[in-house]
Amino acid sequence: MAKRAKRTSKRTGISAGGTGGAGAYDALMKELREVATLGSVASLIGWDQETYMPAAGAGLRAGQREMLSGMIHERRTSKKIGDLIRACESSAAVRRDAKKSANIREARRDYDRATKLPRSLVEEMARTSALGMDAWKDAKQESNFKKFLPWLQKTVELNREKAKCYGVPKGGEHYDALLDEFEPGMTAKKTEMIFGPLRAELVPLIERAASAKKKPDERPARVVLPIEQQKEFATKVAAQFGFDFNAGRMDVSSHPFCDGVGPGDTRMTNRYRPDGWCDALSSATHEGGHGMYEQGLPKEKMFGQPLAEAVSLGIHESQSRLWENLVGRSQPFWQWGIKLAREVFGAPVRKLSADDVYRAANVVRPNFIRVESDELTYNLHIMLRFDLERAMLRGDLSCRDLPGVWNARIKSDLGLKVPDDRRGCLQDIHWSMGALGYFPTYTFGNLFAAQFWEAIGRDIKNRDARMAKGDYAPILQWLREKIHRHGRMYSANELCERATGKPLTHAALIRHLTAKVENVYG
Amino acid sequence: MAKRAKRTSKRTGISAGGTGGAGAYDALMKELREVATLGSVASLIGWDQETYMPAAGAGLRAGQREMLSGMIHERRTSKKIGDLIRACESSAAVRRDAKKSANIREARRDYDRATKLPRSLVEEMARTSALGMDAWKDAKQESNFKKFLPWLQKTVELNREKAKCYGVPKGGEHYDALLDEFEPGMTAKKTEMIFGPLRAELVPLIERAASAKKKPDERPARVVLPIEQQKEFATKVAAQFGFDFNAGRMDVSSHPFCDGVGPGDTRMTNRYRPDGWCDALSSATHEGGHGMYEQGLPKEKMFGQPLAEAVSLGIHESQSRLWENLVGRSQPFWQWGIKLAREVFGAPVRKLSADDVYRAANVVRPNFIRVESDELTYNLHIMLRFDLERAMLRGDLSCRDLPGVWNARIKSDLGLKVPDDRRGCLQDIHWSMGALGYFPTYTFGNLFAAQFWEAIGRDIKNRDARMAKGDYAPILQWLREKIHRHGRMYSANELCERATGKPLTHAALIRHLTAKVENVYG
Repeated sequence: MAKRAKRTSKRTGISAGGTGGAGAYDALMKELREVATLGSVASLIGWDQETYMPAAGAGLRAGQREMLSGMIHERRTSKKIGDLIRACESSAAVRRDAKKSANIREARRDYDRATKLPRSLVEEMARTSALGMDAWKDAKQESNFKKFLPWLQKTVELNREKAKCYGVPKGGEHYDALLDEFEPGMTAKKTEMIFGPLRAELVPLIERAASAKKKPDERPARVVLPIEQQKEFATKVAAQFGFDFNAGRMDVSSHPFCDGVGPGDTRMTNRYRPDGWCDALSSATHEGGHGMYEQGLPKEKMFGQPLAEAVSLGIHESQSRLWENLVGRSQPFWQWGIKLAREVFGAPVRKLSADDVYRAANVVRPNFIRVESDELTYNLHIMLRFDLERAMLRGDLSCRDLPGVWNARIKSDLGLKVPDDRRGCLQDIHWSMGALGYFPTYTFGNLFAAQFWEAIGRDIKNRDARMAKGDYAPILQWLREKIHRHGRMYSANELCERATGKPLTHAALIRHLTAKVENVYG
Repeated sequence: MAKRAKRTSKRTGISAGGTGGAGAYDALMKELREVATLGSVASLIGWDQETYMPAAGAGLRAGQREMLSGMIHERRTSKKIGDLIRACESSAAVRRDAKKSANIREARRDYDRATKLPRSLVEEMARTSALGMDAWKDAKQESNFKKFLPWLQKTVELNREKAKCYGVPKGGEHYDALLDEFEPGMTAKKTEMIFGPLRAELVPLIERAASAKKKPDERPARVVLPIEQQKEFATKVAAQFGFDFNAGRMDVSSHPFCDGVGPGDTRMTNRYRPDGWCDALSSATHEGGHGMYEQGLPKEKMFGQPLAEAVSLGIHESQSRLWENLVGRSQPFWQWGIKLAREVFGAPVRKLSADDVYRAANVVRPNFIRVESDELTYNLHIMLRFDLERAMLRGDLSCRDLPGVWNARIKSDLGLKVPDDRRGCLQDIHWSMGALGYFPTYTFGNLFAAQFWEAIGRDIKNRDARMAKGDYAPILQWLREKIHRHGRMYSANELCERATGKPLTHAALIRHLTAKVENVYG
């Protein structure tokens, strides 16, 4: 961080980063670090809940988490932090320092977001989300949309309320205020302008794969292999990519996730099935991508500061998708990966070629379920959700009509007939949690990843040849330099422009997917 | 808990357990529960530090723990809790309710202990302990007592100070105030009166084993067996004894320990060596004993209340020693245990008889190291430490003379010549941590365990025959009923009298050890 002479803010009387570290800026950073430390405890016990907590400990855990959440919220919204931010904002010394002023800009954003919602609304959302998730679980199990309908209606209503509190931008819509929480600076209109051309090119590409005469053999991805060896393989690949296991772990949970607990401690999880070694690899490279981003943020010295935090969900997802799809599903990767697989698994994979596995790992097949979809059709799932949640929020779509509209869209987009709502509009947890505006970030992740990947291809000599030899260090180095180390210094789009020379478009992803379809489907 | 009509305390104006749960008693219980919830978070991240934390996470973990400790201390010593206790003390309704008044009596004890030490002393002790532990580690590694000497002197001095703050009882000594922290109600004089006759009978018993012509064959305890199978065996025994793995776990750490994190969540650890299956079993039964006590405390409804907490370290240790030594090192246990061992380990143990393992697990051999000692000589180690720490505190022994006195005592007690201070007076961590008055509780544990065991033998028909069949439920049932469910309702000695009809003496332990020596050494 740049060192500069510091002055005392005159308006507030609180010194902004003055001598002896007693100023407002230093005080604010200390406060943010403490809140982050509390947050890291909450993260850790959340991780434990999904990995090692004994079943009977669930009640205690709920109490612990509620207590910590309350304490964290109280501190994040404290008058003290508000005053310190204001003091920093009026300090010329802070304004002159690009990093400090970025920290203050982002701290202001967080503080406003945390304090803009009235307590009554926060509580009602928490209650609705808790009850709504229960109702959704039942409804999904029974494939009974009516059970979830009142909660969906309530959720949409509360999100409209929430958007109003955050403030709907001029010329914008409610959706913008919600999306901005997950992808700062992004709007529904901009999303539409990217998703439109993406869809226009995706659809014929999916057609092309579907109508290809030669289909790849999927069996290489379904070889039955011992779980312990699958763990070893997945761990070795993640380590080779650059995940630092001295500062992190990979354990087992029912749904893979990654949590950047804090400096020196990033925890990811995986799951294993006897015939799912390629799935376990995907999860490890996906979560490993999230994990390397967390490990690359400058937390050591700046823990709790915005500049040591992830900039957006889209950028976070770009890191996981890049390692999972652009690296881990590529031909060069498998040239190296098949050798490691033979070392770890021995005989059962000895006869598989790099190309056998590469093709098996890249089958395109429309699926009802988003999380089981391939690299291409996945994005159609996201567009569907974006369009429908936006329409519900606008009031263009009545919640009760959701299943019909959903199913018609799956039919027209994917040519599939949804058999029941469990495999239709009830499949995802997000809306039951109250999260509207979240889904698009998954496709933003794919788009950013492909655009970064092209830039990496330009910037790194012999990128693919190096990958084929197991050398992934230059790729991680590029990401560290262009993305990770900046934290929230720049917006996601600024980052993208600085790293790739262009704002985000659909072009790179389409080029990548086209090449892949040609490669796999001939 | 007994339900009674509640009244409002007149003196304070704070209702003590009044209508609507708004009274002082209910408010205090709520407060204690919250403090305990925070404490359970601290426990959990402490457990994680010893089991799964990645190496690079140590710095963050230190920050997390310091923060939580500070928050817990602040709440435990708050004026609010003090006021609530006072309100309850002056409430007739609380006084009339035996359980409530016991809770208040113990809450008062905790509050006074927590608030009696001036902040400056607490901070100096924390600093001395942190630096002292570092110095001790170096000193131990180099076997260089001089490095630790100044920290030992400081520790003794601070403990004298601490004892003064707690208050030295009339006719008592400083040591009493320290011991009382770990074993409430116990004094140096009373300890002396139990340890004296214990030593008088132990020494000839150890002699007898040493001079026996027939020595047991130790090899059955040293069979090399796969770690995974050792884990399985240790886990199955602990489960058979009654440790509830639905409400707890057993993981791996460098030193075994058990932490009753909170309701439904008790975590123990173990360690494994290829030739140490009997050691792994001992640790599992020992920690399992602690764990079953934690699981038997009435935490579900009363978490945070003294009546849901362990009464003393001696009683806690009695639970671990009972399962480890009285059950797990007995002939009846091995009659069942050898069958399980054959199921789990197969061929390598097939030719071992129950008696072979029983005898191998009960070898008596003096050892420099306390934690590696057998059931008999262990207690001489404790007496040595009790005598020397008491003498240092009184000023009868100068710290600088410790190594000489220690070595002379080991020579006269165990007939061993201490080769260096690493294996002598520097072997234990306790003094470096600042814990004087802790050691005797280990032998109290042995004494309580043996006395409980005799009572169990009287109360449970065919106890040994049932053990030989793998039926340990009546033993756990007895402990639940007589010990666990009471928490801190009675003092350790009251508990002992209620459970066994007699106050604590050395007699039962001597009877147990005599029978064992006769059995093993003929």
